[in-house]
Amino acid sequence: MELLKQKILKEGKALGNNIVKVDSFLNHQIDVNLLQSIGKEFHKRFEDDNITKILTIEASGIAIATVTALYFNVPVVFAKKTESLNLDEDVYTHKVFSYTKDRYYDIKVSKKYLDEKDNVLIIDDFLAKGQAALGLYNIVKQSKAKVKGIGIVVEKGFQDGRELLLEKGIKLESLAIVKKIQEGKIIF
Amino acid sequence: MELLKQKILKEGKALGNNIVKVDSFLNHQIDVNLLQSIGKEFHKRFEDDNITKILTIEASGIAIATVTALYFNVPVVFAKKTESLNLDEDVYTHKVFSYTKDRYYDIKVSKKYLDEKDNVLIIDDFLAKGQAALGLYNIVKQSKAKVKGIGIVVEKGFQDGRELLLEKGIKLESLAIVKKIQEGKIIF
Repeated sequence: MELLKQKILKEGKALGNNIVKVDSFLNHQIDVNLLQSIGKEFHKRFEDDNITKILTIEASGIAIATVTALYFNVPVVFAKKTESLNLDEDVYTHKVFSYTKDRYYDIKVSKKYLDEKDNVLIIDDFLAKGQAALGLYNIVKQSKAKVKGIGIVVEKGFQDGRELLLEKGIKLESLAIVKKIQEGKIIF
Repeated sequence: MELLKQKILKEGKALGNNIVKVDSFLNHQIDVNLLQSIGKEFHKRFEDDNITKILTIEASGIAIATVTALYFNVPVVFAKKTESLNLDEDVYTHKVFSYTKDRYYDIKVSKKYLDEKDNVLIIDDFLAKGQAALGLYNIVKQSKAKVKGIGIVVEKGFQDGRELLLEKGIKLESLAIVKKIQEGKIIF
């Protein structure tokens, strides 16, 4: 998606060899016009998959998934990461390792909001080592719903997330794939 | 907002005398059509306030703030609650007590995304004792931007959040105000 790549080149920042910072428009401050273009693009790529629900994970997936859901006209469900006194006890759960935060956490989705009749599109901001995406995939599997695809805004193509997802036979669409970070420059 | 109240009566659940659960359409699963009506309503109530930025807090404020921002055509900024290795160190920060989670946490916003030229609309899903809203108000004050108002989806009118915000002279708009919970029933 050319518009997104231009935005990443203009406003994104490379830290070291590994981190792509996009917090000026995607995951701290959010450019809602760009988000509409992203939502339309995901809709174009998955419109024939009879999507009934969009699943993401808090926090930075929520804005992207919500605007995308407007184009599919389906509900969003976001997996919770933290313990909350108000969350149902009857949940699908899976343990996920976050390399960004350097710890394990449980992701949880109430059993009320996913079932075997659902065709699920998983949406997230980043794909790196694939742990969050695989966690969400596992949650959908527990519910007996179908994973119709995974839509990612920025993929770090130099890590092994893609390979792990393709092994599961999942349709994966990334709107921008960073091939490498070289001398502070992001290269697609 | 009648549509919202009807939805709360139909799908919301009262737990004890204090908790209003709306996780089937607002803060776990999200009804994006309802969210569009909410966004339009906030726009109607604040359209003359020259809003340049919408500020919310992760996680359940994000979807509401993002769809609302589409109607104002301004960026969203969401305050972060947790430590992240990727967040700037140059942040506005404030300590907030969560009654839901029964602990203090720090909320943080990068200094890059709020400044004295901004007219800020604060958006959140719930107002109860006002701690999150006051935390966001404090963050905006640190940035020298103007707080033009606070938009809340569900206010618990039987708690003192409203009073604390009005003391600061803030324009507060709540789309549904729960007067009390009586024998398992939500009363507006």
